[in-house]
Amino acid sequence: MNQVEAFFDQVITVKWGPDKKSVDIIDQSLLPGTLKRIQLDTAEEIWEAIKKLRVRGAPAIGIMAAFATALLASQIDTEDYGTFAQECREITSYLSSSRPTAVNLFWALNRMQKLIEDSQDLPVADIKDKLFAEAEAIQAEDIAISRHIGETGFSLLSELKEDNKEIGILTHCNAGTLATGKYGTATAPMYMALEHGWPGDAMHVYCDETRPLLQGARLTAFELSQAGIKTTLQCDNMASVLMAQGKIQIVFVGCDRVARNGDAANKIGTNTVAILAKHYGIPFYVCAPSSTIDMATHTGADIPIEMRDPHEVSDMWYKERMTAEEVNIFNPAFDVTDHSLITGIITDRGLCKAPFDEAFTAMGLGLSQ
Amino acid sequence: MNQVEAFFDQVITVKWGPDKKSVDIIDQSLLPGTLKRIQLDTAEEIWEAIKKLRVRGAPAIGIMAAFATALLASQIDTEDYGTFAQECREITSYLSSSRPTAVNLFWALNRMQKLIEDSQDLPVADIKDKLFAEAEAIQAEDIAISRHIGETGFSLLSELKEDNKEIGILTHCNAGTLATGKYGTATAPMYMALEHGWPGDAMHVYCDETRPLLQGARLTAFELSQAGIKTTLQCDNMASVLMAQGKIQIVFVGCDRVARNGDAANKIGTNTVAILAKHYGIPFYVCAPSSTIDMATHTGADIPIEMRDPHEVSDMWYKERMTAEEVNIFNPAFDVTDHSLITGIITDRGLCKAPFDEAFTAMGLGLSQ
Repeated sequence: MNQVEAFFDQVITVKWGPDKKSVDIIDQSLLPGTLKRIQLDTAEEIWEAIKKLRVRGAPAIGIMAAFATALLASQIDTEDYGTFAQECREITSYLSSSRPTAVNLFWALNRMQKLIEDSQDLPVADIKDKLFAEAEAIQAEDIAISRHIGETGFSLLSELKEDNKEIGILTHCNAGTLATGKYGTATAPMYMALEHGWPGDAMHVYCDETRPLLQGARLTAFELSQAGIKTTLQCDNMASVLMAQGKIQIVFVGCDRVARNGDAANKIGTNTVAILAKHYGIPFYVCAPSSTIDMATHTGADIPIEMRDPHEVSDMWYKERMTAEEVNIFNPAFDVTDHSLITGIITDRGLCKAPFDEAFTAMGLGLSQ
Repeated sequence: MNQVEAFFDQVITVKWGPDKKSVDIIDQSLLPGTLKRIQLDTAEEIWEAIKKLRVRGAPAIGIMAAFATALLASQIDTEDYGTFAQECREITSYLSSSRPTAVNLFWALNRMQKLIEDSQDLPVADIKDKLFAEAEAIQAEDIAISRHIGETGFSLLSELKEDNKEIGILTHCNAGTLATGKYGTATAPMYMALEHGWPGDAMHVYCDETRPLLQGARLTAFELSQAGIKTTLQCDNMASVLMAQGKIQIVFVGCDRVARNGDAANKIGTNTVAILAKHYGIPFYVCAPSSTIDMATHTGADIPIEMRDPHEVSDMWYKERMTAEEVNIFNPAFDVTDHSLITGIITDRGLCKAPFDEAFTAMGLGLSQ
């Protein structure tokens, strides 16, 4: 096992335990202080792990739900389809209550449930096998999406490469291994570079800490440094100094949703990074699985911005409250980056440039809408 | 006492205790949780208060040092000038060791010391009176500077005022009452507005929390809300959302040092605010006492940026370390805002517009260099 493989073996969000008798996850609630993997084999343990954010990130939660359904279905002791299907429905119903706002949780559970309902003519043992295969397919599809994004991003890094000079890369929040099946989205170009044989110090990734939830500090900086990539953490308001000093050659960020015109919603702070990158003439790329391209949404103005709990800003991580009780707190979860600030949107079908609407259509994205 | 006067009586950094027998300060180390004033009358208490940041902010530290010197000199029981002067030298030498990097501490102590040395023909009792007057003059000069800046800033606010609409103001870090003699610099326009009779909700001040030391959350949001001004706190990376939503009409920030060409060094994050303001077409003003205009420094490139302790980013306020041990941390204390991003520099001699070099010269700024 080489260093990159060893890294993924330790840090991959979800894999099988020995003999596929458990789901093996990295307990993200202990990061960045402790790297610990745990093996779960009961519905209650799995429910608690999703609830308590031991596994997080939309794709990773979907994979976890699929693995869990296959595992728990394999434990059902019956050869009667009706009994089996009923118990499976109870399992997926229970798991779906663990995090009611996680869209990927429902998506994965529905996909597993549909397979069961479409398999009523098969022996239960065969359905159990098909459920394992389906869970693995869900993970493999996510990994393939990341690899496609990563290869396109890696080609951009290759164009920037000069002998003996590190490439400075800025990223924001966590669109990494810890949110997905394996390579992440915004981190996929860097992991692909490692797999192509680049040493970890050929790149220098600067991670915005990403207030208020600090995913950049806690997760992205952790996973990149674990992978052997040269990693620096800075507060969100320090990125402009790095850019002014010429330390950043390219920006990669993830996204939650991209409108038809290319406006991209992502973690709060992304839009600021884009405006800074534009000011300093640094290319700014959004890494977007094709499932995030929403052709039914015309512009970013149509994307509602979720407002979150003020305590995330004033209290959450601190020893004590950090502002006066009388003060109002503004805590938007996301912001929208205008398409005019985006150099390119890297999808799993290739690199899209403005006009994004036409590029998306040419790549067959969003045809189902 | 009206509401504004009552506010300053509670929150002013330094004033005399009863009968000028003590120095009365707001203990800033307890903010924002507890508003407590303490009276200090020994050299050891005063030294500890400066050391432990119970008083902070360059002008406030200078005022504290001057008040302390006058108070402690008044306690010296001698009528012999030589003995008095020697004991005063011991006092100022001791106080200067409390915070060896605070330039204003030395400046104020030297000014008090010089008065003693220039007064050797006077009775000790008269010198003691002159020291009290000198300390009060140092405070009065600082208050006058803030008032001049504040009146210019208030005229800008008045131009923006529309009936029944609040003026959205963004500020960064703490250039407020808690750093100065009374009105602050970036906050002076708002306090002048209150003194001119504006209600607190005629303005809505949005305070950047200002990572990593959180002066915006802990200090600025505290003092503005205490003064009855409508106040909202946001993370630094959220300001662009406020600007995109049209909630900000003007930005006021303080500064540490302004180069001849108008490039302004201020707390880390200020440059990002300036770039965002430019992007959204929002006027961006730097509030600069004339002592910060450094005509000997040609551009911001000549201003060195202090790098601070990584633990301020990873650990300082938190219940536990927030990033992996292997991660490098980038923690610049200041950044430099390019003059091209600055709408105007508000000095105590008036409003300077580009070309700043000429404006500074026309106002007689920096002639001593």
